[in-house]
Amino acid sequence: MAESWLNIPSESDFSLINIPFGIVTYSGAPTPRVAVAVGDQALDLVVFSEYDGFSGLPDIQPYLHVFDESTLNSFAALGRPLHKIVRSYLHDVLVKDGPFRERLQDNAHLRSACLVPLASIGDYTDFYVGKHHAFNVGVLFRGPANALQPNYTHLPVGYHGRASSVVVSRTPVRRPWGQILDADKKTPIYRPSKRLDIELELGAFVCKPNRLGVPVPLVKAEDHLFGYVLLNDWSARDIQAWEYVPLGPFNAKNFASTISAWVVLADALEPFRTDGIENTSELQAYLKPADGSAKPVFDINLEVALQPAGSNSPSVISRSNGRHLLWSFSQMLAHHTVGGCPLNVGDLLGSGTISGPDDGMQGSLLELTAGGSKIMDVGGVERKFLEDGDEVVLRGWCENSNGQRLGFGECRGCILPAWPDGVAEE
Amino acid sequence: MAESWLNIPSESDFSLINIPFGIVTYSGAPTPRVAVAVGDQALDLVVFSEYDGFSGLPDIQPYLHVFDESTLNSFAALGRPLHKIVRSYLHDVLVKDGPFRERLQDNAHLRSACLVPLASIGDYTDFYVGKHHAFNVGVLFRGPANALQPNYTHLPVGYHGRASSVVVSRTPVRRPWGQILDADKKTPIYRPSKRLDIELELGAFVCKPNRLGVPVPLVKAEDHLFGYVLLNDWSARDIQAWEYVPLGPFNAKNFASTISAWVVLADALEPFRTDGIENTSELQAYLKPADGSAKPVFDINLEVALQPAGSNSPSVISRSNGRHLLWSFSQMLAHHTVGGCPLNVGDLLGSGTISGPDDGMQGSLLELTAGGSKIMDVGGVERKFLEDGDEVVLRGWCENSNGQRLGFGECRGCILPAWPDGVAEE
Repeated sequence: MAESWLNIPSESDFSLINIPFGIVTYSGAPTPRVAVAVGDQALDLVVFSEYDGFSGLPDIQPYLHVFDESTLNSFAALGRPLHKIVRSYLHDVLVKDGPFRERLQDNAHLRSACLVPLASIGDYTDFYVGKHHAFNVGVLFRGPANALQPNYTHLPVGYHGRASSVVVSRTPVRRPWGQILDADKKTPIYRPSKRLDIELELGAFVCKPNRLGVPVPLVKAEDHLFGYVLLNDWSARDIQAWEYVPLGPFNAKNFASTISAWVVLADALEPFRTDGIENTSELQAYLKPADGSAKPVFDINLEVALQPAGSNSPSVISRSNGRHLLWSFSQMLAHHTVGGCPLNVGDLLGSGTISGPDDGMQGSLLELTAGGSKIMDVGGVERKFLEDGDEVVLRGWCENSNGQRLGFGECRGCILPAWPDGVAEE
Repeated sequence: MAESWLNIPSESDFSLINIPFGIVTYSGAPTPRVAVAVGDQALDLVVFSEYDGFSGLPDIQPYLHVFDESTLNSFAALGRPLHKIVRSYLHDVLVKDGPFRERLQDNAHLRSACLVPLASIGDYTDFYVGKHHAFNVGVLFRGPANALQPNYTHLPVGYHGRASSVVVSRTPVRRPWGQILDADKKTPIYRPSKRLDIELELGAFVCKPNRLGVPVPLVKAEDHLFGYVLLNDWSARDIQAWEYVPLGPFNAKNFASTISAWVVLADALEPFRTDGIENTSELQAYLKPADGSAKPVFDINLEVALQPAGSNSPSVISRSNGRHLLWSFSQMLAHHTVGGCPLNVGDLLGSGTISGPDDGMQGSLLELTAGGSKIMDVGGVERKFLEDGDEVVLRGWCENSNGQRLGFGECRGCILPAWPDGVAEE
């Protein structure tokens, strides 16, 4: 098992088999730039390249400027083959006594870095391909016989989300005001949401654009997927219930969606491919994987922890897995573009809530509390939906047969109280 | 009535009471820049300012660089008061024997310009506030008793659209492939849309951002609205019918949405304010206009012309008006941000289809042909939905009591045939 000359704790998300990419600023580097996370540290790729860190890698020489940018879009746009080369090179720089040990291991002067993540996104589409979640929610609203809509197993159901409110981990989330149906189920009233919820999702970023009118065939879809993050699609269930028929969720979802700060590259996840939920429907040609193609989804342990306001420690309230999806991100991307919709570098695709099949595996409070009808014990504190001051942390990690761990870092957000009378203090 | 020293035909959309802003390139100016449209010409504001055209306007001097950009976002971000000053100054430059006649009227050297429009957009939200359209469509799907959903008169229903496929007038539109329910109403099949439709809408651009978590009160919403365009929200009705429950339209709408090339500034439309459709529901506080506030919508004549493939001339198939809206753009913006969703400069809001109350005023073929059950005569050619090679032109204009006209220019698009087998020739 390859070890680093850096001290990487065995429980670290950012091991040598990961090397996720992100954006940092820190006191010595006030302008945002690209970095990779390794153990407890970030490697600033601007400083690294200025000190000839990449001189062992001729392929990247014409593109070093992509690291001196405030988003990952330019790096993403270099394409999957170059991502693989750069990630592999950085692995060799970071591995103990590796072929490029003189770049960093033996260069005390250059060993410096610091973390402050940031991200930026173009369009954002949220899918709904966590079948257990869709079923659980369907049961709550329509009963088990009609829980899934007829189209559910035939296409990856999704909708356009709001890109402007996608924020990075640790950004506080203000409880939204909105229009909500009163207890009489007839009169709408204007008040802060009382059924504020989370959704445990995976997000994927696009690294290769397709032009308007040009669909991406399923067999090429992988080339368009840059990497993955955790995604908490905060949802105001009471606003959603009143607004979502007929055009889908709007204000119930557009106040914030939080992503983890480091993008785990697609190549890093390749070893963790696994089978998803079996789909017994006959698939349309554009959604049908070729014989012998790679397994569709990833074996990623997922976890939701909730730290209630005033409490000192978070409690894990749900454990799920990235395998609990009916459709792969490749299928989502093929479906998204089948009519010619153009995707751009930096666009974000969300999986929809990923719930497992059993109790304690649900990726939303709506499911965990059966629509708010059951009280949940969170480390001795009662909860149905989120209260002001509550903090939610999503975590995700893979482990290979050697016991090596690859993780996403945390996706964290806390709830600020609604503005008094709906009027913001500016 | 103020006349220009330029020859502006009386039927021109781009009169002195208009002065809309757009982006142009032309042979002498290959890099995109800001221009205003006047009669049959565009005034290139980069060349104009380089030759001291703005020297009569001290207020704009620090900001002249905003004209040398490929989008209107920087100009938009200067805010409504400065838009007003610039538009008024350009009026005085263009009016015959005006106070700034030496800038252009008497400066033969500087009089040069040429048109090739282009636009760029951030997020895109489509509303559904054309009540007659919503009612007509509701009748088709659910009968007159339940035509409007319970929330319809209480909030401006809307959903997040796809920004990446918003294109400018004259961009051809490829007929989309997609998943569609077969004639048996049970089996989905994969084929090109056969029910390709238009939607006659107005679009509004945002010129002032609000931060995440900070709602824009209705009384301040006007300051956030830059100007207006025509919007054709192309729709594949057969794809929509199968996919839209429960999360709303997706591939039915994301293959293209066409806007007119010139943004008519909000100030230019002020004289044309009028009453919209009366809303008898009690409005929530955040949607209730203050006593004595300006009339909510605009008296804009709207028209849809269709030139069937092989035909030599377009026929007007619908005549509507911007007054046929239940909610104002200010109310849409207040509702959009009520939970704290941030809007950015350049974001686009669509009104939803604007149908009038009577026959011949419907803003979609779905309504004009009663869901494809009636054949429409288009200059001797039969149509239900759009055929390959059909061309659609939306037009919009206002006229004041002096007979002066202000128009939007055209919003045009033609239908390209679907790719054979769904595979694009790249």
